[in-house]
Amino acid sequence: MALIVQKYGGTSVGTVERIEAVADKVAGARARGDDVVVVVSAMSGETNRLLELANAINDTPVPRELDVLLSTGEQVTIALLSMALEKRQCPARSYTGAQVHILTDSAHNKARIMDIDAERVQNDLRAGRVVVVAGFQGIDENGNITTLGRGGSDTTAVAMAAALKADECQIYTDVDGVYTTDPRVVSNARRLDRITFEEMLEMASLGSKVLQIRSVEFAGKYNVPLRVLSSFEEGKGTLITFEDENMEQPLISGIAFNRDEAKLTVRGVPDQPGIAHKILGPIAEANIEVDMIVQNVGADDTTDFTFTVHRNDCSKGLEILKSIGKNLGAGEVNSDNKIVKISLVGVGMRSHAGIASNMFKALAKEGVNIQMISTSEIKVSVVIDEKYLELSVRALHDAFGLEEATSV
Amino acid sequence: MALIVQKYGGTSVGTVERIEAVADKVAGARARGDDVVVVVSAMSGETNRLLELANAINDTPVPRELDVLLSTGEQVTIALLSMALEKRQCPARSYTGAQVHILTDSAHNKARIMDIDAERVQNDLRAGRVVVVAGFQGIDENGNITTLGRGGSDTTAVAMAAALKADECQIYTDVDGVYTTDPRVVSNARRLDRITFEEMLEMASLGSKVLQIRSVEFAGKYNVPLRVLSSFEEGKGTLITFEDENMEQPLISGIAFNRDEAKLTVRGVPDQPGIAHKILGPIAEANIEVDMIVQNVGADDTTDFTFTVHRNDCSKGLEILKSIGKNLGAGEVNSDNKIVKISLVGVGMRSHAGIASNMFKALAKEGVNIQMISTSEIKVSVVIDEKYLELSVRALHDAFGLEEATSV
Repeated sequence: MALIVQKYGGTSVGTVERIEAVADKVAGARARGDDVVVVVSAMSGETNRLLELANAINDTPVPRELDVLLSTGEQVTIALLSMALEKRQCPARSYTGAQVHILTDSAHNKARIMDIDAERVQNDLRAGRVVVVAGFQGIDENGNITTLGRGGSDTTAVAMAAALKADECQIYTDVDGVYTTDPRVVSNARRLDRITFEEMLEMASLGSKVLQIRSVEFAGKYNVPLRVLSSFEEGKGTLITFEDENMEQPLISGIAFNRDEAKLTVRGVPDQPGIAHKILGPIAEANIEVDMIVQNVGADDTTDFTFTVHRNDCSKGLEILKSIGKNLGAGEVNSDNKIVKISLVGVGMRSHAGIASNMFKALAKEGVNIQMISTSEIKVSVVIDEKYLELSVRALHDAFGLEEATSV
Repeated sequence: MALIVQKYGGTSVGTVERIEAVADKVAGARARGDDVVVVVSAMSGETNRLLELANAINDTPVPRELDVLLSTGEQVTIALLSMALEKRQCPARSYTGAQVHILTDSAHNKARIMDIDAERVQNDLRAGRVVVVAGFQGIDENGNITTLGRGGSDTTAVAMAAALKADECQIYTDVDGVYTTDPRVVSNARRLDRITFEEMLEMASLGSKVLQIRSVEFAGKYNVPLRVLSSFEEGKGTLITFEDENMEQPLISGIAFNRDEAKLTVRGVPDQPGIAHKILGPIAEANIEVDMIVQNVGADDTTDFTFTVHRNDCSKGLEILKSIGKNLGAGEVNSDNKIVKISLVGVGMRSHAGIASNMFKALAKEGVNIQMISTSEIKVSVVIDEKYLELSVRALHDAFGLEEATSV
């Protein structure tokens, strides 16, 4: 008998019929002898409905009151799911974040979980009940209602699994697992049976939006095995876990890509200590997040400085660069938002050289010019012209044999 | 500077625009220097929407989970009203029933308030904030969410006023006060400036459905001055308070009537001790509430026994009477649901004889036959044929001069 935490997102509980289907799944797990804690989101559309009400009153609603408002969304779902479970003779109890003391800091709308009192939940589990917990919400130490921000229900599930020392945290979603790359781009992309936390973090942050990054970090930190499954189809999904020393690791787990970035370049800046800070300091002050940074040696004691930002920040970033470029005595300043970033991710890289050069070779073979390169221990990223995205991802997927389960 | 508890019902907060209008009223009271606690209901339609979701899953939803579900309705309103107040530079804080520890018993869907922890509210008032509290809901001693049943927001407001020792509890509704009788029946019906708790209880239970009976009882018990006002019009409304010994009392405060009753009669039952119990015992066991009861002496040591019940229970009551009538050796058993009850209500009756006979005289003058009579200290009720309702109420309103403020 295992202790399982299951999380169902907004689409999975979007209608009464889908809530009934979730109740079938939960009651099924219970009938197989597992103890089950369920974490649910608001029914899809509900959070937007509530936001519209708030925005009709104020474009920038008071954060404390916005949390009071939005937290009702999950509260509706926990009640309905518990009713559906009881109808199936499956004893259940619903709890809001406050009722199971999901203690957070006081950062309304983006609070972080600090502690969970697992005792109440454990008492119900011992009494044979399924426990249904509202995701996304908690209380601060003064009893104010807080929310974790969008997608926070994944984090609630992982935190609950950690607090209960659950055997597995299952995230039910509208995809049936994590793929080697986006199946809409590569038709023979393969579902991974398992992937490590580190790889998943790289995949997620690079645009494979299956799971919230924070929940993966949390799961890694507390060593909670995390499984991504489909709410709508049967299947084992993808298990996200620690690297098993005895296990044969695949060389490359997957190919992620991101179409949301733009590139900013300052040419001919004096090659002096502190120059990076002089350029990126004002960018950071403007709250623009920077992703890749590359600095090349140029001619005549000058250097070319390039970095990527979110496309929405491109024109703002360009303006800043133009004003500081003059003070620095820099040359041309320009931007390019017709780019994509493609990344190979795999823990197998740690023990294998040559991955990067094989990547570059595969791209060269297709005539794709590489504009920027950045590497980390388990990842190689390149920036290329966005028109080559599909071509490049397919070529790399082939070159590294990702359509078949390979291992080192 | 006074401490005022204001309560706004579902119609008064039914749209964002109406919530903004309530915020204007509340901010206005605050600007005049009063401390204000606001109790609100769910936006009109919201409770029904939630009930429909629950009923789509189960015709008889688990009571505990129904409370978790329904309590979200008021939570939405407190958040939106607080946002609207903050937009007006009027500092505000919203609280659910649980957050201000509105402690109830555990009777889900019809819980009763046992205690309120006023400290948190008082701290906010001292800090210059308006406190916005969710009506209709509380928690039991195990932290389960409870609701007080429909209309319970009035009770929340009165209980809050009692706990805070407020100067006045103002119930905002869609009528501008309590009238001498229904203005739809008597066009010159007059709004009362004040009425006693006892009179209000008689008026409310007799069909003038301005306030929930429980909240009036509660207000009387804890001596909370209660005022009924309109959300939509300016005006002083009607103050419900204790009888002031020094104040000149009106003879009659109002005329209530009830179209929802039916009359059941058993003729020729043996005139023996215990006969009333033999007849009404089975009626009570069938959960039928009995209102008026009249027993007349008949011929030959027999008696005629008549009582009124809700019209919905008429045919069920008749069946019961038929079966027990045989055992009792009674004569004819019959029912009449074409009746109405009309009641004169006034604390002035206590010190004045002749009210009843004046009432009967006024009805006789119009040729109205009286079928039943029942009296209490501050009320005289008669049952008549329903077709004479309007004629009779108008005649009595004239006869007792209710169109003008009269006093003893």
